[in-house]
Amino acid sequence: MRKNKLNKTLGIIGGGQLGKMIGLAAANLGISCYFYDSDKNAPAQKISQLFFNYSFDNKKKLEEFAKYCDFITYEFENIPLNTLHKISKYRKIYPGIKALQISQDRFLEKSFIENLGIKVTDYKKVNSLDDISKTLKQKFKKGIIKTRRLGYDGKGQTIIDLNSVENIKLKIKPNFYILEKLISFKKEISVIAIRNKKGEIKTFEPTQNLHKKGILRETVFPAQISKKCSLSAKNIAKKIAKELNIVGIIAVEMFVLKDESILVNEIAPRPHNSGHWTIDACNISQFDALVRSIFDIPIPQIKYLNNCKMINLLGENFNNYKKYLNKKNCSVYIYGKNKIKTDRKMGHVNLIL
Amino acid sequence: MRKNKLNKTLGIIGGGQLGKMIGLAAANLGISCYFYDSDKNAPAQKISQLFFNYSFDNKKKLEEFAKYCDFITYEFENIPLNTLHKISKYRKIYPGIKALQISQDRFLEKSFIENLGIKVTDYKKVNSLDDISKTLKQKFKKGIIKTRRLGYDGKGQTIIDLNSVENIKLKIKPNFYILEKLISFKKEISVIAIRNKKGEIKTFEPTQNLHKKGILRETVFPAQISKKCSLSAKNIAKKIAKELNIVGIIAVEMFVLKDESILVNEIAPRPHNSGHWTIDACNISQFDALVRSIFDIPIPQIKYLNNCKMINLLGENFNNYKKYLNKKNCSVYIYGKNKIKTDRKMGHVNLIL
Repeated sequence: MRKNKLNKTLGIIGGGQLGKMIGLAAANLGISCYFYDSDKNAPAQKISQLFFNYSFDNKKKLEEFAKYCDFITYEFENIPLNTLHKISKYRKIYPGIKALQISQDRFLEKSFIENLGIKVTDYKKVNSLDDISKTLKQKFKKGIIKTRRLGYDGKGQTIIDLNSVENIKLKIKPNFYILEKLISFKKEISVIAIRNKKGEIKTFEPTQNLHKKGILRETVFPAQISKKCSLSAKNIAKKIAKELNIVGIIAVEMFVLKDESILVNEIAPRPHNSGHWTIDACNISQFDALVRSIFDIPIPQIKYLNNCKMINLLGENFNNYKKYLNKKNCSVYIYGKNKIKTDRKMGHVNLIL
Repeated sequence: MRKNKLNKTLGIIGGGQLGKMIGLAAANLGISCYFYDSDKNAPAQKISQLFFNYSFDNKKKLEEFAKYCDFITYEFENIPLNTLHKISKYRKIYPGIKALQISQDRFLEKSFIENLGIKVTDYKKVNSLDDISKTLKQKFKKGIIKTRRLGYDGKGQTIIDLNSVENIKLKIKPNFYILEKLISFKKEISVIAIRNKKGEIKTFEPTQNLHKKGILRETVFPAQISKKCSLSAKNIAKKIAKELNIVGIIAVEMFVLKDESILVNEIAPRPHNSGHWTIDACNISQFDALVRSIFDIPIPQIKYLNNCKMINLLGENFNNYKKYLNKKNCSVYIYGKNKIKTDRKMGHVNLIL
């Protein structure tokens, strides 16, 4: 029985912490979320009225799942595209398949962004050791080999220079890797853009991110950058959101160089770890913004309530959560994963500054 | 698999909006909630991994349900006590059975509070029309007949004076009603007290409540009362929490008279509608406080982030939610009930002041 517009269902592909937090935001708007995940212990399963526990390449089950839902979204990038194309014939998929396709592949991603006139780190598709050596000789001396697809949290990345090419342990295959110039940047920042069904775009303010070993550790709002740099960063995120024609949110990670010029590092058309601060520091969170966009619910002007530092609780420092629980300026989020592992994101803390 | 202390399960008897909001607070702490409700469309069902849809007097099913959970709580008062006593032999029930028993019965409630040396409205157990007439002649001229049990949102209440005794339509049976003096108060306030397993008690600051037709319409934080009155109100709530030996939270509704003396109106050992403002105006909400007490998680000093007005969205004005969604100082909560009915609580708005 659906007596009001908000009594609807969102299907979320992926039941990790991002899916779970989308689900909690949706619940506050009276929207149910159903989840699909290959991991039977996925965190979102705990708030899931309907949970499909099948592999992500099980087309039949994904289709069956989609039919239970009004709209579909995803909380991670690595979902087979052909499946989504099939689903999209009878259920709309947000933020969008094009955005997903591009964010799935570092080469496509960088070319797409470059074509918009936005700067990215110097890069080259490399299909052989020869390609790598040539690039390191001719274009830049030190680089990072990255898998084009399926990398996250620094996985599938190796730093390399001319001296180490010979020792490389990767089996270089065609169309599998890119080589990116290793640059020295002043700051890492990110911006989350929101685009609704009318095509109106808003962004959250830029935040400053601290990575170690390729994994986000902390995000601070506001970023310590000039107003001009902040404006440029927001305009870049808006342009990408517009050109990808998304409905929902997209996170754009960027490097700020010494001269405050900006290079885009990568994009993610979904809620992003560097946006968790919005839960406690803004009138609406990134999760709320996504759900509202999808269901065509108005998105108010974004209001900033406090400054904030988001601290990730990784497996190795997970027990730190205890010290935050008793602090009056901390909001602690425990994802509810069933095993603690090194480098695994187990929760986060929003420290109100 | 339970690798960390927080990976636990809370069983909630009742799946209305209060249960749902307990569930959302628990989810952020990595705790799963299972729900039990006789209504298959209960709002909490949408975030329920395990949902028992049976009547509240089905002892066998309630027991079966309890066995899935680490601890049990309830979100409304009208649960058969003997069932809870049985469950309590193998699962702890919070805030507590004694508190529930007393809050289930207006007569017990008032006697209990009076015995603590706390003032309540003048009242009398009435078993016959004669009793009513006698009380109206001897004790007070105008009163409210209330059912001792099962009343909520002004249901089961009739205003009466000597002239209207004869027209009374209620079938007065022994031990069923009390007659309460109709008083004129200056303000209605409430305080939510939190008591942890160590017996430490905190309270939220008092809020001011506006009822119409016995249904809460608005709650404003802070209440416009003197510091002294506020302190008395908090001490009353603390004393009741202590004497009932609860672990969790209890809401105490009070009348403030012209001279700022306080009468306790009623108590509810569960989250309370007049505590919804805490979601957006405090560092921890009433729901969070309940879950933390039950699982022995530290409760920080309560920090007040903003002033706040909570506005209930009842069936007849539910569509007002639309106007709030686009306002930057409003947080809108839609409970996700499947039918809109007059006087039914469909959602609420927290307006940040």
